[in-house]
Amino acid sequence: MESFFSFLEKRVDDCSSLLCIGLDPHVNDLSAPTAASARDFCLNLVKQTSRYAAAFKPNAAFFEVFGADGWIALKEVIAAIQEESHRMGSMIPVILDAKRGDIASTAEAYAKSAFEMLGAHCITLSPYLGKDSVDPFIQISEKGVFLLCKTSNPGSGDLQDLVVTMDNRPQTVVNGQYSASTMSSSVYLYEHVAKLAQQWNTKNNIGLVVGATHVEATKRVRAAAPDLWFLAPGVGAQGGELESALKAGLRKDGKGMLIPVSRAIARAEKPGLAAAELRDQIGYIKMQLNREGR
Amino acid sequence: MESFFSFLEKRVDDCSSLLCIGLDPHVNDLSAPTAASARDFCLNLVKQTSRYAAAFKPNAAFFEVFGADGWIALKEVIAAIQEESHRMGSMIPVILDAKRGDIASTAEAYAKSAFEMLGAHCITLSPYLGKDSVDPFIQISEKGVFLLCKTSNPGSGDLQDLVVTMDNRPQTVVNGQYSASTMSSSVYLYEHVAKLAQQWNTKNNIGLVVGATHVEATKRVRAAAPDLWFLAPGVGAQGGELESALKAGLRKDGKGMLIPVSRAIARAEKPGLAAAELRDQIGYIKMQLNREGR
Repeated sequence: MESFFSFLEKRVDDCSSLLCIGLDPHVNDLSAPTAASARDFCLNLVKQTSRYAAAFKPNAAFFEVFGADGWIALKEVIAAIQEESHRMGSMIPVILDAKRGDIASTAEAYAKSAFEMLGAHCITLSPYLGKDSVDPFIQISEKGVFLLCKTSNPGSGDLQDLVVTMDNRPQTVVNGQYSASTMSSSVYLYEHVAKLAQQWNTKNNIGLVVGATHVEATKRVRAAAPDLWFLAPGVGAQGGELESALKAGLRKDGKGMLIPVSRAIARAEKPGLAAAELRDQIGYIKMQLNREGR
Repeated sequence: MESFFSFLEKRVDDCSSLLCIGLDPHVNDLSAPTAASARDFCLNLVKQTSRYAAAFKPNAAFFEVFGADGWIALKEVIAAIQEESHRMGSMIPVILDAKRGDIASTAEAYAKSAFEMLGAHCITLSPYLGKDSVDPFIQISEKGVFLLCKTSNPGSGDLQDLVVTMDNRPQTVVNGQYSASTMSSSVYLYEHVAKLAQQWNTKNNIGLVVGATHVEATKRVRAAAPDLWFLAPGVGAQGGELESALKAGLRKDGKGMLIPVSRAIARAEKPGLAAAELRDQIGYIKMQLNREGR
């Protein structure tokens, strides 16, 4: 049985891209403030950028704001991505950016809504409620989650940068001394979330949201979770930012990082061209990092 | 301008109740697995229990699972609560249990969806993204939020019980010694969330979700946030649990705690009677606590 991240990696290979096209039909970008207009905005973006998309990421909020009509539009957009995938002969994963998080039968209902009702392959979740709130979303290995870890917003530090102390009770005493590894240790809350996610990822379907704006944090998260895929928002069209983010976060195999971009592509005169350029820019930076022996 | 919690307190006085009726149309409890059936299930509950309801709390997940039809049903249920309120001459607040959490324009869209599109008065949110993710929901004082603090599920400890160290840089040195209050201090993550919420609550529209199952945690949260309202899930029909939870969490004015109950009422033979009994049980415990001089 295929896992979500082996599915994603297949697509990454097919299109030589780490670009995740954000579908954010913000009302200001629409020709009219209607669900139909939000749908058409997204369908146009999908059509123009699908060749360069390792994944698409519709943002649930911008559909929910139109109520029931918004949900119909969201479902149509996801169906259109499936059709486009079949047409190209390469399936493009859909990551529903919904940042849900609840427990037990409520979490099961959200999972059913995202994966069965809407047809998404992956969803973003908050980790605040703990492992049992994630479980209902990762039962089937083909379906995946990205857990919020270190987010790109200024207020992310309020909780995520808190220093948490792990009370590692001494397990071994060598020559009357506790060995260093069993002493209590301190990490940032977001690092702890990364470590938990790495442990929980037994089916290759858990990734992390790590803001590309936080280069030092990205390095720490990569150290804490060497295997996981990151969804790294916050990159503009600026090469410098992109380079330092990729350097900090890429895995040794040159994968492990999806770069979501929304407005810089959607608002470009030619979204397809903007996506192609960003894909190539990422590819060029990867090649340089590879030459430098990373 | 009225604040959300002054609105809630007016209703609490009107119905002498701290009961929050959960509207959880779980598919197993429905006559058919359809949105119409979910709607009818809720409309019946609203009709039978409105006299005893300090608030109603529809759970978004059980509507979303029906897609667009579920959203229409949810909107109809909220509209029916408004009608019932007008009929009784006492407005009942609607708390949308949606556990959202996102940033900037995305958070604004979620707020618009909950408050304008659906007509809810309050929403549950995850605090993991920090203050700027809460701001779009608390701009208007009449609209409120309950932030997840210490939740009732077993996995709540994974993050919420972590010990965070606050680096309080010494501000005063007395006789060459740091005064105790300025040294670094440790609290549970959920306590820190409670302290932040108490600070952020400048418009009387921020409350906390604190599981009634965690009595010690409830005491700590009450100490950290003396003024705030708690939404305290996890109480069954057992008086003992209810008593210790109320003792730990009620404010000195005998308010400050909403007790959400879903299945114990919805699955009762006579939901109205079950709600009346729970309301009276809470009232009796409050009276006893009052006699004991609390």
